[in-house]
Amino acid sequence: MSILVVGSVAYDTVETPFGKAERVLGGSASFFSVAASFFTPVNLVGVVGRDFGEAQLAAFKDRAIDLEGLERMAGDTFHWQGKYSYDLNSRETICTELNVFEFFKPKIPARYRRSSHVFLGNIDPLLQREVLEQVEQPQVVACDTMNFWISGKLEELKKTLARVDILLINDAEARQLSGEWNVVKAARAIRKLGPRTLIIKKGEHGVLMFSEQGSFAAPAYPLEEVFDPTGAGDTFAGGFLGYLASTGDHGESALRRAVIMGSTLASFCVEAFSLDRLLRLTRAEIDERYRLFRRLTHFEEL
Amino acid sequence: MSILVVGSVAYDTVETPFGKAERVLGGSASFFSVAASFFTPVNLVGVVGRDFGEAQLAAFKDRAIDLEGLERMAGDTFHWQGKYSYDLNSRETICTELNVFEFFKPKIPARYRRSSHVFLGNIDPLLQREVLEQVEQPQVVACDTMNFWISGKLEELKKTLARVDILLINDAEARQLSGEWNVVKAARAIRKLGPRTLIIKKGEHGVLMFSEQGSFAAPAYPLEEVFDPTGAGDTFAGGFLGYLASTGDHGESALRRAVIMGSTLASFCVEAFSLDRLLRLTRAEIDERYRLFRRLTHFEEL
Repeated sequence: MSILVVGSVAYDTVETPFGKAERVLGGSASFFSVAASFFTPVNLVGVVGRDFGEAQLAAFKDRAIDLEGLERMAGDTFHWQGKYSYDLNSRETICTELNVFEFFKPKIPARYRRSSHVFLGNIDPLLQREVLEQVEQPQVVACDTMNFWISGKLEELKKTLARVDILLINDAEARQLSGEWNVVKAARAIRKLGPRTLIIKKGEHGVLMFSEQGSFAAPAYPLEEVFDPTGAGDTFAGGFLGYLASTGDHGESALRRAVIMGSTLASFCVEAFSLDRLLRLTRAEIDERYRLFRRLTHFEEL
Repeated sequence: MSILVVGSVAYDTVETPFGKAERVLGGSASFFSVAASFFTPVNLVGVVGRDFGEAQLAAFKDRAIDLEGLERMAGDTFHWQGKYSYDLNSRETICTELNVFEFFKPKIPARYRRSSHVFLGNIDPLLQREVLEQVEQPQVVACDTMNFWISGKLEELKKTLARVDILLINDAEARQLSGEWNVVKAARAIRKLGPRTLIIKKGEHGVLMFSEQGSFAAPAYPLEEVFDPTGAGDTFAGGFLGYLASTGDHGESALRRAVIMGSTLASFCVEAFSLDRLLRLTRAEIDERYRLFRRLTHFEEL
């Protein structure tokens, strides 16, 4: 098993009520890859500029993350700058410098083409489809998107979704994509567009999964210190798909365990800036928090 | 086992995106009592005016709800009028006519004084304490409150909380009461005020319980049609405490099952205006939805 991930590799400048981090490693493919690599080898496709440093590359190199698909282009690396509100529940984008990411055309190296699992990070749905055209019958295609594509490229997005098995979006995106406020109705409408499985991420309120077997609700892990929420959604996706691929299964039981594993990884991600916490995380810590999730949610029959 | 509940019995006029109900049965003690009465006999203490009709009384009379403590006073019954936003996530109070409720002084009938469980609905914390002074060593005292008392009568409220075992409030109230944004920190601060167990209600996002055994997270049941959220919190409290009292236990396992039972009852409450759905609910439907909650949340070990 291996996972092909296509998405952004970026520098983030993040300000939270607890501090500021300047030009630290970020981007959806970065968070995804590190989280997934705890479970399954990852094939990374992305683009960085000449300014992308060796220290950043080192974050990937010590792991089961293949970097042949990480293109280096003349110019600067994608840079996102954001500031969180005092309660961390909303954020303001201060600037988005796409830089080399503006010209990103995913080129899938030959030995990535047989990846068993594919994660289409949040990029133009047309590019997402071009990725699918370069791979050979993956077992599972998972996909992220955002409001920008839902409002700006809906028809392209629908064509992509028709080829997606698992869609991971947040609750606002689910409402926008479906035109339904109620999440159960939204899920039914979205699943008709293609994805058999829909995962709705609700941040501190956890995750809802809608699949052929019905619905599954998982809480977020109640943390005393949430330091920086940046990347939590991509980390969730990485933990989810990384674990799922490692099971060699995509039945309901595996999907549910994968949702909890995604939530587990995300709960670590937010404990520090950038990928700092993920990079010093151990498998033993992961398994222990997974067990705590069971304790957090368990109740007996009547 | 029996439960003493003290709170409001009211007429509600409610407007939702789906319709309007005029002067229908409402009030915290009404929702609480009907929900709790599925599990444990209820002793109701409240006040209504001369305008309170036989049809409304009938809602209680067919159940294990003792009405000796429902005082009838000259004047009109408490009337609340509210309007929900299109998404049901916020509501505007259009008018609050306290009427006879303004002069409510809870008088506990002699045969209520040995109730094993007490629920102090959302009234002046001074009155809540007067209730406690009229009862004989209940096994469990549960309590609700609101922003009005937290900001207006904090010292009185703290004196009451020192005598409370289980506090049930929403997330905004927990933040206000503790001065902490983070719910884990808020819970720790609030439990120091007295309640061994804190239940934080998050509406469509479910419930968090903090007890001596740690934390427990329960989702709300994902409903396709939420018709009217009025009374959901009080119905939760009724299902919770009614079930808990029926177990004769207040250990962690019973508390967790009680949280799910509260969530189960609340999920029915919101399916119709007023108490309409609760009044035609059967125990078989309740048990079936409890089972669905297990299916909704269950996942396997790694």
